[in-house]
Amino acid sequence: MRASPDLAAIEAMDAADVLRPLRRRFILPEGVIYLDGNSLGAASSAAVAALQMATTREWGQDLIRSWNTAGWFELPVQLGDSIGRLIGASAGQTVVCDTTSINIYKALHAAIALRPSRSVIVAESDSFPTDLYVAEGVAATLPGSSLRLEGVHAPSIEELLDERVAVVLLNHVNYRSGELRDMAALTRRVHGAGALVVWDLCHSAGALPIDLDGVHADFAVGCTYKYLNGGPGSPAFIYAAHRHLEKIRHPLSGWWGHARPFAFEPHYQGSAGVRRFLCGTPPILSMRALQGALDIWQDVDLTALRQKGVALADLFIGLVDMQCGHFGLKLESPRDGARRGSQVSFAHANAYQIMQALGARGVIGDFRAPATMRFGFAPLYVGYSDIWRAVALLQEVLRTEAWNDERLQGRKEVT
Amino acid sequence: MRASPDLAAIEAMDAADVLRPLRRRFILPEGVIYLDGNSLGAASSAAVAALQMATTREWGQDLIRSWNTAGWFELPVQLGDSIGRLIGASAGQTVVCDTTSINIYKALHAAIALRPSRSVIVAESDSFPTDLYVAEGVAATLPGSSLRLEGVHAPSIEELLDERVAVVLLNHVNYRSGELRDMAALTRRVHGAGALVVWDLCHSAGALPIDLDGVHADFAVGCTYKYLNGGPGSPAFIYAAHRHLEKIRHPLSGWWGHARPFAFEPHYQGSAGVRRFLCGTPPILSMRALQGALDIWQDVDLTALRQKGVALADLFIGLVDMQCGHFGLKLESPRDGARRGSQVSFAHANAYQIMQALGARGVIGDFRAPATMRFGFAPLYVGYSDIWRAVALLQEVLRTEAWNDERLQGRKEVT
Repeated sequence: MRASPDLAAIEAMDAADVLRPLRRRFILPEGVIYLDGNSLGAASSAAVAALQMATTREWGQDLIRSWNTAGWFELPVQLGDSIGRLIGASAGQTVVCDTTSINIYKALHAAIALRPSRSVIVAESDSFPTDLYVAEGVAATLPGSSLRLEGVHAPSIEELLDERVAVVLLNHVNYRSGELRDMAALTRRVHGAGALVVWDLCHSAGALPIDLDGVHADFAVGCTYKYLNGGPGSPAFIYAAHRHLEKIRHPLSGWWGHARPFAFEPHYQGSAGVRRFLCGTPPILSMRALQGALDIWQDVDLTALRQKGVALADLFIGLVDMQCGHFGLKLESPRDGARRGSQVSFAHANAYQIMQALGARGVIGDFRAPATMRFGFAPLYVGYSDIWRAVALLQEVLRTEAWNDERLQGRKEVT
Repeated sequence: MRASPDLAAIEAMDAADVLRPLRRRFILPEGVIYLDGNSLGAASSAAVAALQMATTREWGQDLIRSWNTAGWFELPVQLGDSIGRLIGASAGQTVVCDTTSINIYKALHAAIALRPSRSVIVAESDSFPTDLYVAEGVAATLPGSSLRLEGVHAPSIEELLDERVAVVLLNHVNYRSGELRDMAALTRRVHGAGALVVWDLCHSAGALPIDLDGVHADFAVGCTYKYLNGGPGSPAFIYAAHRHLEKIRHPLSGWWGHARPFAFEPHYQGSAGVRRFLCGTPPILSMRALQGALDIWQDVDLTALRQKGVALADLFIGLVDMQCGHFGLKLESPRDGARRGSQVSFAHANAYQIMQALGARGVIGDFRAPATMRFGFAPLYVGYSDIWRAVALLQEVLRTEAWNDERLQGRKEVT
């Protein structure tokens, strides 16, 4: 076993970190080590300021006029393009709207409409559950359509592909294990079988470089409240490749997706371009907060972001191995950084109690039933010394708290 | 012609107005008479403060823990119940989520699923267009379903009802004319034909008392950014009567509507009660702003609200008749206050230019193509002397601006 690095060595890594100056742009609570940016990203001064401006000036003072004078109309596409730069999407293919679940619904419908002779949706059984629930919703209402699931011991995605498959819905990074899928290879295989692919980027957008255009992805969706730091429940995004845009149809045909929303025409005609994914009136205040949060990304080198994300997680795994190895923790994430997003999970029979005890010591990660402890490493504001301190506190929890059945009797689990 | 009341008489009406003290709770720009609260309601100090608290403390300091510690989980139902009190819905039937357009989609699907032997949707051809667009979206994807429209010179809603009609989608107040439908009578007739009704309350919630439970309505939807003052693009609401709740199915089956969202189960099972209308992660910051805005309603007597709304509009129509009658304005709203929401429209060939000129003088209403000037009277913050001043300025505009073809040549219309 190697000797554990000392804090001085770790602090030197922080000092050399090119992303370190960005940390100052976030509002992080005192005494907290926040390893849950993969669930809800931290607030930034820019997001708070943008929201404040939108609330007091645009809404409070200019009221309805702000739709024109403040450019509210353009926000969904403008923010979509800002996110596009982080996911390898050239302008005009990404738009911010609604929630990830609703955008999955639109993307699945649009994909099936593009493959009219096919009717099967393929998804991963261990994908984030809302992906499955929404796919069930589509399959239940679209005549003749059905859902096939890849399972842990069932056929792989490749084996499920045949001439009946219209669309494959894939999670780029698995929400639980952090496993990173090979987007280029899987997209090629899905296309080889004549189907289209929808990538769910919730756990990868803002965590690592993505190249949607480069891999010829068809559709993508994702949320903005994790690594993109848009705020709790901030609006989601949806991407469709240029080659599909003019042919897209989906049933959430609200007035904001109309070619001429303010002509108040009696029949729906979808807007040109990516605006046809819009449905109802956009949540302007949330969009302004997101815009503030996205401004920070203009200064981020995504290669440096990825290198740091892998280094933080490698350090975490290495320190846990060295300092907590004999406490029965089991790594549930790929050990190889290249096959992993920016998060790491460990299993432990007392995972819930450990996360509670860690939280009481200021280390925030999260628990996923039945027995997973999940830690996320947002490279914009997590430092190497945070990792060092977090693992020291994890060791303290494991050493000092007696995880025995007697103590746990009668405890109620709250998720 | 009666003599126009003088400003002193009007100011006495403001002094006697029981709702007048509420005006101080709104942030209204100096020098502006805001007659567009039917489009975007004004900001209140309570909404701004709630948003600020949610942003800096709940998101900024408590981060992910706020889902539990700040009660974020409960907000959709809690705010739904607050709105329920304004629309005659007892607790547990209303929930805040998504947009009006998306909630119409859910309600239409749910209604058709409750009437499996029927497949026709009936709607009004002059309803707010998104209602029609979404109904088209439902009809286009649900096998065998279709859409019938009531038209100005076509059969009335009653004549369209037959044994094939599953659901009727009605606007409580027409967005353009302000005409108020008789909710009790129409609901009875729709039920008499064996169909269900979805009421769109966008232009009535917060403008007048509504009694959804009392009229035995089935479903209702509405936005919160007009008379409820939730902020631009604030989340919408949806109501379903208790008797339908446990049987409701709709295809937007996202994880937030699951019976156990945090059990991460592979198959969808709808939550008990009204939560099953939830889909993706709720927009927390927007919900907090809405919560602040709704707090004000605890002090509002809805009968007084309605009386004032009618009185403001009557005064507006009366003053326009007296002072602007010879300028070619044509009232497009019911003259009878009992048949009108809290808004008034006039047609004029130069409507667009008049509204621009009025806006330059600080009177904000809105223009609806091709030739409608629309004025809304939010009883919480509009006063009688605002009406007096607005009409005086309208007269000035009509008197001093030369609306002739020569001047207008080459002008481009921006909506």
